Amino acid sequence: MCDAQPTREQQLQRILTPLQRFIKAENIVTSVEALRAYECDAFTTMRQLPLLTVLPDTIEQVQQIMRLCYELDIPVVARGAGTGLTAGSMPVENGLLLSMTKFDRILDIDIANKTALIEPGVRNLAVTQAAAPYNLYFAPDPSSQLACSVGGNVAENAGGIHCLKYGLTVHNILELDVITIEGERLTLGGASLDAAGYDLTALFAGSEGLLGVIVGIRVKLLAKPASARVLLCGFDSIENASHAIAHIIAAGIIPAGLEMIDHTGINAIEELMHAGYPIDAAAVLICELDGSIEEVEDELTRVMSLLEALDAANIQISNNEEEKARIWAARKAAFPAMARLAPDNYIMDGTIPRRALADVWQRINQLADEYQLLVVNVFHAGDGNMHPSILFDAMDADQHHRAEELGTRILELCIEVGGTISGEHGIGLEKINQMCLQFTEAEIQQFHAVKAAFDAKNLLNPGKQIPTLARCAEFHAMHVHQGEMPFPHLERF
Amino acid sequence: MCDAQPTREQQLQRILTPLQRFIKAENIVTSVEALRAYECDAFTTMRQLPLLTVLPDTIEQVQQIMRLCYELDIPVVARGAGTGLTAGSMPVENGLLLSMTKFDRILDIDIANKTALIEPGVRNLAVTQAAAPYNLYFAPDPSSQLACSVGGNVAENAGGIHCLKYGLTVHNILELDVITIEGERLTLGGASLDAAGYDLTALFAGSEGLLGVIVGIRVKLLAKPASARVLLCGFDSIENASHAIAHIIAAGIIPAGLEMIDHTGINAIEELMHAGYPIDAAAVLICELDGSIEEVEDELTRVMSLLEALDAANIQISNNEEEKARIWAARKAAFPAMARLAPDNYIMDGTIPRRALADVWQRINQLADEYQLLVVNVFHAGDGNMHPSILFDAMDADQHHRAEELGTRILELCIEVGGTISGEHGIGLEKINQMCLQFTEAEIQQFHAVKAAFDAKNLLNPGKQIPTLARCAEFHAMHVHQGEMPFPHLERF
Repeated sequence: MCDAQPTREQQLQRILTPLQRFIKAENIVTSVEALRAYECDAFTTMRQLPLLTVLPDTIEQVQQIMRLCYELDIPVVARGAGTGLTAGSMPVENGLLLSMTKFDRILDIDIANKTALIEPGVRNLAVTQAAAPYNLYFAPDPSSQLACSVGGNVAENAGGIHCLKYGLTVHNILELDVITIEGERLTLGGASLDAAGYDLTALFAGSEGLLGVIVGIRVKLLAKPASARVLLCGFDSIENASHAIAHIIAAGIIPAGLEMIDHTGINAIEELMHAGYPIDAAAVLICELDGSIEEVEDELTRVMSLLEALDAANIQISNNEEEKARIWAARKAAFPAMARLAPDNYIMDGTIPRRALADVWQRINQLADEYQLLVVNVFHAGDGNMHPSILFDAMDADQHHRAEELGTRILELCIEVGGTISGEHGIGLEKINQMCLQFTEAEIQQFHAVKAAFDAKNLLNPGKQIPTLARCAEFHAMHVHQGEMPFPHLERF
Repeated sequence: MCDAQPTREQQLQRILTPLQRFIKAENIVTSVEALRAYECDAFTTMRQLPLLTVLPDTIEQVQQIMRLCYELDIPVVARGAGTGLTAGSMPVENGLLLSMTKFDRILDIDIANKTALIEPGVRNLAVTQAAAPYNLYFAPDPSSQLACSVGGNVAENAGGIHCLKYGLTVHNILELDVITIEGERLTLGGASLDAAGYDLTALFAGSEGLLGVIVGIRVKLLAKPASARVLLCGFDSIENASHAIAHIIAAGIIPAGLEMIDHTGINAIEELMHAGYPIDAAAVLICELDGSIEEVEDELTRVMSLLEALDAANIQISNNEEEKARIWAARKAAFPAMARLAPDNYIMDGTIPRRALADVWQRINQLADEYQLLVVNVFHAGDGNMHPSILFDAMDADQHHRAEELGTRILELCIEVGGTISGEHGIGLEKINQMCLQFTEAEIQQFHAVKAAFDAKNLLNPGKQIPTLARCAEFHAMHVHQGEMPFPHLERF
């Protein structure tokens, strides 16, 4: 650390001199105290100071910064609001942190085509607020939607409680304006449903800042449904709660949201929020139905009869916006509520096929027993996106170690049942080792080849998302797909 | 031609000897007469005999063929049912045509997760038929769905009349099993909504066989709606018909299908099908509404009042499956009906933002007058996907030339209003020159870099979809985006 200082200064001077020619002094941050604000995202256990932070306010400046870094071989990490959960926008040492917060304007709302043209630093909720006068909204709604920026939503392919029906961010964007590491400006996708050429818009969604920097986004807007009602109920067993999910989906109903919380979670939430959740239940189910008034009434009746057949208890149905907000506010407070149970919380983000729900839920509980740790299950059950939260005390080295090992076991379990290690939070640095479990060597090599097609010098967010094969070898003997081929039936020999 | 024969024979022998070690003789086609069956897809004006056609029946054989071609530098063009409309699966000279027709099995239907695992040669309609007993269906429904294969649907990112509500093929697939040109087998995507790593599934959708060969597909299945009714009506002006589209969408209704046909199209169809279309109308609108019985009734009432306010005439609403089928069968017969008006029909596939509909429609009619050719407009109006059809006689060299020039002008018009040259048919060879109009040099170079990340030797379907920059220079001075930046508001200087 001591003799790193001069190197840092030298590196800094190399970039500062040319940078100051086109970036105002107030938009360049170099002091260590001021850089502390950028050393991590919301995954706060991993921190790294950048060499410097730059806050451009025009697209041309972004292009110039990229050209400069390309020329000088300086890594670039782009950052939006910094609400990511996997250290995806954590700076790299000797790298430039590109803060896109000045790109915060909504440029156009096209009512006829139901799209909005926005800059990447616009907050998620601000899009919906700006579209509200036209009775439109932006569907992706991560819990951090008050703070997180849409550029970050695209980079992480964020979800939210409504993605079961309305899709992830990738399903709600049409066009991206991006700057490559060489400073080229590319338009990906277009205003229409389809676009010619390879679907680079989808490729960029979830690429975690490794392929380019997003400077403009055309998002889809949806018409606000005439009616949206939320149903809450309790179950006395995990099996029945899981069956309820399966039966609702099997009935051809696609709820706007379909969530589950386990017994520990319910009690933590009730203590904090007093929302009227049934504290004796083994699990609660929250189901939002939206559409026309007639459609919602019809679906509510059908869901009620399915739930009653599975001995659901304490059924509550929202009759107005206030009641709906009360039920959801409590659900969204799940993580603050858990913070009262233990100093640290390792939030997992695995996704599994729906049919495996009850089985995986039980096996997670068995694993929790085995590792003697408390795991709270709060998850987007409708689309199989689980957020089991491992509660522990990081000050206790043994607990910390057990929590990390349990986390890995849970991710392995997700892969084993045909799921994935990421639902909506991305990989970042947090889960980079688990990528070695999810993918074969050939698949990881293909990812690297795609990365190199955009960034041959590996300057954009290096070290994130896609592990090197050397890292995989070090982390673990690769045990891909748990020995089972993903398309077992396709084998004919 | 005469002295090409020995070269062909030599090339053939180079590959035949090793190929015969693992492919049965009956699955190798080398005679010129038999190869005629593979010389074109449904875009029949472009033809090319392949060096040979191979019909593998196991995934391992596909891997071995790829490794062999990679080693011998022999191009590979994969082909499904050959129903493509842009010469995308037209063979290349001295190349191997890989027919995937033996991969025709539906391997699994997973009712709980609403997915099906299929081989690429399965016909589109066969998936829906196999899912029907579980009240499920596969949403993409191109007009060729009786014949076209799902592997081809993925390669072209096919649409259909229901893609306004249910999306293109890319929105209805979860996982792909692919073989690279080096013979590696990769699993892209997964059974869940999200997958870790770059979204290579979306990248493959619409990649027209340039990145790899698809050997397995996990598709999404949807629950069949309880009710689906079709409304047909006539308008006395293009403006009112276009307004009807805008008003329906603005009302927050997303029809399952929303189609328009112009006066000439209506009359051609009526002469062939006698479906009761109003022959005096300037345009007809066909609108399918689906969902629960209550929802459909509610939306029908609202659509009716919107249409009546725009002086819609001859409103017909289907009361049963038979009436619904009659209205759609006539629409689907539009192209056979046009075949009675002229020997040749150049079907365009541009997509434009919805708000530009009336304007573009009128400008196409003006262009048709200018070029003294008949253009019939039949299009998926809801998602802006136009299929203007230029009728001409290819035997008349002047007409042929005018038709091609008019086609280019129409595609340029689509680009000018912010649309794209492809809606659902892909680029293939047919529209490769127009790619030079749609994209900047930097964008085309980026496409080539992505291609090289999968196929550095450029052996997979070479010469299709992405033009070389040399070709663009030859075809046209690149005049990208018609001088207008795609994100004009983002410019701050």
